Amino acid sequence: MKMEAVTGYINKNEKNFVEELKEFLRIPSISTNLENKSDVRKCAEYVSGQMEKIGLENVKIFETPGHPIVYGEYLKAGKDKPTVLVYGHYDVQPVDPLNLWTTPPFEPDIRGDNIYARGSADDKGQVFIHFKSIQSHLEINKTLPVNVKVLIEGEEEIGSINLDKFIEDNKEMLKCDYVVVSDTSMFDHEVPSICYGLRGLAYMQVEVTGPNRDLHSGSFGGAVDNPVNALARIICKLKDEKGKILIDGFYDDVLNLTPKEREEYSKLPFDEKKYMKGLEVDELFGEEGYTTLERASARPTLDCNGIWGGFQGEGAKTVLPSKAGAKISMRLVPNQDPQKIEKLFTDFVKKISPKSVKVEVKSLHGGNGAITPLDSPAMDAAVEAMKKGFGKTPLFTREGGSIPVVNSFQTLLNAPVILLGFGLPDENAHSPDEHLNLKNFQRGILSIAHYLNELSKIKK
Amino acid sequence: MKMEAVTGYINKNEKNFVEELKEFLRIPSISTNLENKSDVRKCAEYVSGQMEKIGLENVKIFETPGHPIVYGEYLKAGKDKPTVLVYGHYDVQPVDPLNLWTTPPFEPDIRGDNIYARGSADDKGQVFIHFKSIQSHLEINKTLPVNVKVLIEGEEEIGSINLDKFIEDNKEMLKCDYVVVSDTSMFDHEVPSICYGLRGLAYMQVEVTGPNRDLHSGSFGGAVDNPVNALARIICKLKDEKGKILIDGFYDDVLNLTPKEREEYSKLPFDEKKYMKGLEVDELFGEEGYTTLERASARPTLDCNGIWGGFQGEGAKTVLPSKAGAKISMRLVPNQDPQKIEKLFTDFVKKISPKSVKVEVKSLHGGNGAITPLDSPAMDAAVEAMKKGFGKTPLFTREGGSIPVVNSFQTLLNAPVILLGFGLPDENAHSPDEHLNLKNFQRGILSIAHYLNELSKIKK
Repeated sequence: MKMEAVTGYINKNEKNFVEELKEFLRIPSISTNLENKSDVRKCAEYVSGQMEKIGLENVKIFETPGHPIVYGEYLKAGKDKPTVLVYGHYDVQPVDPLNLWTTPPFEPDIRGDNIYARGSADDKGQVFIHFKSIQSHLEINKTLPVNVKVLIEGEEEIGSINLDKFIEDNKEMLKCDYVVVSDTSMFDHEVPSICYGLRGLAYMQVEVTGPNRDLHSGSFGGAVDNPVNALARIICKLKDEKGKILIDGFYDDVLNLTPKEREEYSKLPFDEKKYMKGLEVDELFGEEGYTTLERASARPTLDCNGIWGGFQGEGAKTVLPSKAGAKISMRLVPNQDPQKIEKLFTDFVKKISPKSVKVEVKSLHGGNGAITPLDSPAMDAAVEAMKKGFGKTPLFTREGGSIPVVNSFQTLLNAPVILLGFGLPDENAHSPDEHLNLKNFQRGILSIAHYLNELSKIKK
Repeated sequence: MKMEAVTGYINKNEKNFVEELKEFLRIPSISTNLENKSDVRKCAEYVSGQMEKIGLENVKIFETPGHPIVYGEYLKAGKDKPTVLVYGHYDVQPVDPLNLWTTPPFEPDIRGDNIYARGSADDKGQVFIHFKSIQSHLEINKTLPVNVKVLIEGEEEIGSINLDKFIEDNKEMLKCDYVVVSDTSMFDHEVPSICYGLRGLAYMQVEVTGPNRDLHSGSFGGAVDNPVNALARIICKLKDEKGKILIDGFYDDVLNLTPKEREEYSKLPFDEKKYMKGLEVDELFGEEGYTTLERASARPTLDCNGIWGGFQGEGAKTVLPSKAGAKISMRLVPNQDPQKIEKLFTDFVKKISPKSVKVEVKSLHGGNGAITPLDSPAMDAAVEAMKKGFGKTPLFTREGGSIPVVNSFQTLLNAPVILLGFGLPDENAHSPDEHLNLKNFQRGILSIAHYLNELSKIKK
């Protein structure tokens, strides 16, 4: 492939690409608003038009019970070349509070290095990065280095509610060797990074019942157990005072950090004092023996997400409540099975629950973690591509949260997912004045162009 | 005093007294309802009329910012005789849900041994017991064995909001040697009892703040402390798994149960299995070494009355909350000072709070416990009177709750309070179909008539 010519084309068209992006950003494709339904449709048609314009084939708008999914492909790279599925979304978040926007959210405005508009970072700008790199290859080389399938959905901001079924129904069409998702952020300004791991989740609810009705705490206090106190005792037995989880067998399947990974973590520029100041906490808290970034992304943890019971109003009500409850979730690391963890949690809570109360445990939600090995060919290719796109070696990061579509692709297509994010953590993805750094937009197009080329070197 | 003639008079007038009571019960003196304001006034006038009719002197309706207080006295027993202040209230609870009443709440109806009407047990019937015993003495003996002051208020069901000021403003008028309150229940059917102790209260609120905003539990879980988990740790350190309170110095001033008191407790007919069944709990809970009744009334305890934090709705929200809070109250025993306990609690919570969160402690409410020594002359007199009124020896009980007016009388008038209750625990004091057992009404009149006589034997 003539990569110099491709990058030349990209650099020559820098301004044109931004002008084109504005057109995409002008469409108010807010998926959650009923009154924007036709705008979302219009946006799907715009995406389909772009796909055809840049040279993808078999472009099609797939109807779903909600907003459409747009698909296009280019499969002429050759059967010996890997196939990459690119995922992104064309729908955007609502814009309220509108009065906090400096310029209207759907009238893209360039100020300094940034383009301001709803969807600029999340995710239209990043979708456009893929479109423009594919376009550049096809313009110069009349082919792509790898086979490419592109799936752009319109319901990411409302939970990708129809995506799983679509993937299942179209497994053959979507079959691929790698999935590339550009819907996340770089670690920091001028710190290009590759996210290679996500945490999983097991989200539980614990409900404690003491006496069959609310009692007068004067008449009964001291005689019967109190479900709030009992719940507190249960919560305390789940995690010790240093953040170690005490559930039997909880750590059995944990994939430990390798020395190489910990070395990579240590390269990340992280200012703990600034982090604490930003959160206004005097001390951080968590499992001993790990750094803050490791604890927040590569170690499992347990948190109460909510708790309730008894009287929550103003003043003093002397009630001994009948019931109390808590939402308790565990962030899991790759290799921990959410269903197994749910069972370990449930068994353990039953084991430690006092006989003086009745305890019910429910599982509300779960999901697998994900990891792409650092030393895999797709990862080497990503590093090489980012190096060429950004002029500096990218760092490796793991995210502490889960990205549901990543789980879906992993589980349903059984393909590794590579997260190449070109947003920045402070670009207000879901807030007023969302913006995208145009230098990263340009470097993103270059990186993806290189990535397609680097992936073509991997032996099938 | 001719006690035989007095009891003869009471027995002869049994039916008349009940008929008279009906008139009192017909007045819908619901103190909390604005639309019953004139009924409450009418009831105060009725009480004042009764006082005059039975022979009390200096009867007066005292205005307050709310409902009036009615006062009358008879001070001709002689300066060498003790003075007794009788307290009761003429206001009643609301009647909803009205459809659950078998007969209308203000149309007194006799069914079996009971008279059904709002206020029959709480407290008009018990007020009438005092009126009729005073009347019987004055009819027969033309005097009373002791000096008597009677204070009947109209705001007990709305927290006696103007009573403390009235007592303070009229200390000289209300000066007395003993206060008798008939506004409680006997231990059980056919188990006449004298309540000689009440618990005090220290009611606190603990607020825990972690990070300055709600965080995504995926991105931050494991890195920072969670205020709900931290609050659970604090709660667990306040009381051990056997119900013993761990606050430094908490038990220092506790008045321990005497062997005599524990013996009295053991006489109370209490069916623990039935108690557990009624509450639907498989096991009771509390401080080791004490019986359930002792724990519920004569030992201090600590209960969470409410707890909150984070997400309480349906489903799963992956939030690491910024704040959590709990209402935590301690029931105190006589001799424990609520203000001292508040300070011990606050200091202890501050001591055990982790540096990873900020903890604020507030005091919401407090009150002293009360105890009348079992071997005091007023208590001996009460036993003797109940024995004569009921034909059996009364048992001694302590109540686990607080009765605010008892605190007021103790503190402001510095007089021991004797609680002689003639209601029953299942007479639906605040519910539909409130009723009073008419046998106890009659035996109550006899007991109080005897009590006035027995008290007159105490040397001043």
